[in-house]
Amino acid sequence: MLTQEMIKSLAKPTPSKIVLLVLDGLGGLPDSKTGKTELETANIPNLDRLAKLGVCGLSMPIGPGITPGSAPGHTALFGYDPVAVSIGRGVLEAVGVDFPVKRGDVLVRGNFCTVDKAGNITDRRAGRISTELNARLCPLLEMQVQDVRVLTAPVKEHRFVIAFRGKGLSPEVTESDPQIAGVSPSPLTALSSKAAKMARIANQFAELAGAILKNKKPANMILMRGFSQIPRLLSMQEIYQLKPAAIATYPMYRGLARLVGMDILPTGATIKDEITTLKKYYKDYDFFFLHIKKPDAAGEDGDFARKVQALEEIDRFIPSIMNMKPDVIVVTGDHSTPAVLKGHSWHPVPTILYSQFCRFDAVTEFSESACLRGGLGIFPATHIMPLAMANALKLNKYGA
Amino acid sequence: MLTQEMIKSLAKPTPSKIVLLVLDGLGGLPDSKTGKTELETANIPNLDRLAKLGVCGLSMPIGPGITPGSAPGHTALFGYDPVAVSIGRGVLEAVGVDFPVKRGDVLVRGNFCTVDKAGNITDRRAGRISTELNARLCPLLEMQVQDVRVLTAPVKEHRFVIAFRGKGLSPEVTESDPQIAGVSPSPLTALSSKAAKMARIANQFAELAGAILKNKKPANMILMRGFSQIPRLLSMQEIYQLKPAAIATYPMYRGLARLVGMDILPTGATIKDEITTLKKYYKDYDFFFLHIKKPDAAGEDGDFARKVQALEEIDRFIPSIMNMKPDVIVVTGDHSTPAVLKGHSWHPVPTILYSQFCRFDAVTEFSESACLRGGLGIFPATHIMPLAMANALKLNKYGA
Repeated sequence: MLTQEMIKSLAKPTPSKIVLLVLDGLGGLPDSKTGKTELETANIPNLDRLAKLGVCGLSMPIGPGITPGSAPGHTALFGYDPVAVSIGRGVLEAVGVDFPVKRGDVLVRGNFCTVDKAGNITDRRAGRISTELNARLCPLLEMQVQDVRVLTAPVKEHRFVIAFRGKGLSPEVTESDPQIAGVSPSPLTALSSKAAKMARIANQFAELAGAILKNKKPANMILMRGFSQIPRLLSMQEIYQLKPAAIATYPMYRGLARLVGMDILPTGATIKDEITTLKKYYKDYDFFFLHIKKPDAAGEDGDFARKVQALEEIDRFIPSIMNMKPDVIVVTGDHSTPAVLKGHSWHPVPTILYSQFCRFDAVTEFSESACLRGGLGIFPATHIMPLAMANALKLNKYGA
Repeated sequence: MLTQEMIKSLAKPTPSKIVLLVLDGLGGLPDSKTGKTELETANIPNLDRLAKLGVCGLSMPIGPGITPGSAPGHTALFGYDPVAVSIGRGVLEAVGVDFPVKRGDVLVRGNFCTVDKAGNITDRRAGRISTELNARLCPLLEMQVQDVRVLTAPVKEHRFVIAFRGKGLSPEVTESDPQIAGVSPSPLTALSSKAAKMARIANQFAELAGAILKNKKPANMILMRGFSQIPRLLSMQEIYQLKPAAIATYPMYRGLARLVGMDILPTGATIKDEITTLKKYYKDYDFFFLHIKKPDAAGEDGDFARKVQALEEIDRFIPSIMNMKPDVIVVTGDHSTPAVLKGHSWHPVPTILYSQFCRFDAVTEFSESACLRGGLGIFPATHIMPLAMANALKLNKYGA
């Protein structure tokens, strides 16, 4: 079986360059009227041409029938086993707001909530307070609890991040969110002996937070869940001997890229901005993760036409990428987001691998049905990095 | 998952015969002018016919993006996990010169080198001495060190094989080749307690070798690396209940076949000789591994036209094989060797499985692109033996 250790033992640095273009939520399903998917509806001559020049297939992020969240969808694309590498809810919330996470931090998803005089929860979401109010409340909760520093960061509405920074902390504790109203927040208990300190500190923090927020109704208490630490991963530098950089407009994707060791390049909010960033830093790195959020956002909204437009907009920038002459271009997605499902789905994701040595196939257009007949077949998303590395001639021979 | 234990538990001896025809380096890449691969360029009516009569696919020797060496490429074809079964450098060098390896031998790759008066290395390859000189020096190094017999065999230029034969030897020792000049050969140290004896014997041997070679400048010292033993494998007889034989013109492939228990049949240097050997021994065995080196050699040289010619030459012998009426014929390769890459590559390998019961597909020619549409799909090379066994009706039903 293909392992990260094997890839690591074979990887070598070369001047060749790889661009991994991730079109979030790329795959789709047919519109009931036309019988065509978003990709099949879109006018995308440049992606069609790239599909013709390259080798195509359908990437399976996790497994058949499994709908991926953004985190496992991306860890698979980066070549990590998306099931073995678990990224906890607390970590995701933190990296999603560019919180400067440190190894060892225990990260927690916090909710502001409302409690009555007896301390029982009346609203687990504090009436979904405004993000602005959230941002004013968070700093009040930054404190020192014994030898542990408690840091916070607002997310959205009632959601915020808590980071416990100190020695000897383990995330193996229960949650304080009882998931129902009418009861008081649950005390936190350690699930292993090494988590005793974490439980003690977190309970103390909850009590102090309650005191601080006492008069801040509806946000007069907090709930905590998703205790987690950043996973211990080999970085992409260590595995692939690459110098990798990420270009992404949404913080969560930058955060995921940072977890695997990528440099995060400053960029603007549009696809054009992202391409400009790629051009600007092109000589400085040999691997670029270029994340484009638009197709997913449209798919999540169930807006078929807007997803088609997003794909057509991306298509217009393909020549700019090709003109930089990367040795390898991969076009894929972290998962499918069919507009008809208004959400992520389990369907495998159309993928192009383009290089001088990719052994092209008979595919002449970029679509779900065309990729099904492609030279890569239906394949696990974790194969993308080894294939990109091989095509960039960055892997030595295995065995004599 | 398919395991060797399962196949072993199902295998039964029958009179049916299997021919595994391995065209070394079979797969290719398109020529930039014609857009056609070597196979697609070659005029191979007989292989095309076999592809039409059989079921086709693309075999993946190790995994996506992984370029196989000859050893793992072949162990996979023989049905062994090519990653779990590791064949060390010393073993490979030994089997590559038909050295009569015994179980328990610790085999080492030796280099003749040059040292100065202080004992520091001035040339790690002793000026690439002639193979003839090498062959004269090797016998001088055969000796007894305590209770261990030391045997040697010349390979090529400065390279030779050392075999330590005795009780209680383990290959878990460091190497004496420091990989740079200007320093003395490294003393060997045991990497585990059970290798203490091996390290002691090898250091003593190095000292004695230095004394023997003292006046043989430039070859006045030796370096040792790749300490290894033949892996503990079930033989093909044990797994498959076969009586297997190998026909190969190059010693390394004979050696690999011997490691898995095949009889090695005497043969000549040409493809015609190999076919004659097959005919001569056809009645005596029920499994033949027939190895043809030519396509790989041409591919390694970057000689597209010569690889095409080699394929056409092989094609002319296909009717002779079919006329013997084997129950199963498999045509495949241990890896691809595209002329444009001048070396082994990671691309999956065109494969034909022919039998009376193979459920043929729509493929009507033998090529990379045609095999992609074949009934076997893209599949791990380790599936070839189970499929061949099944098609030869040599596997019982699994479960009741």
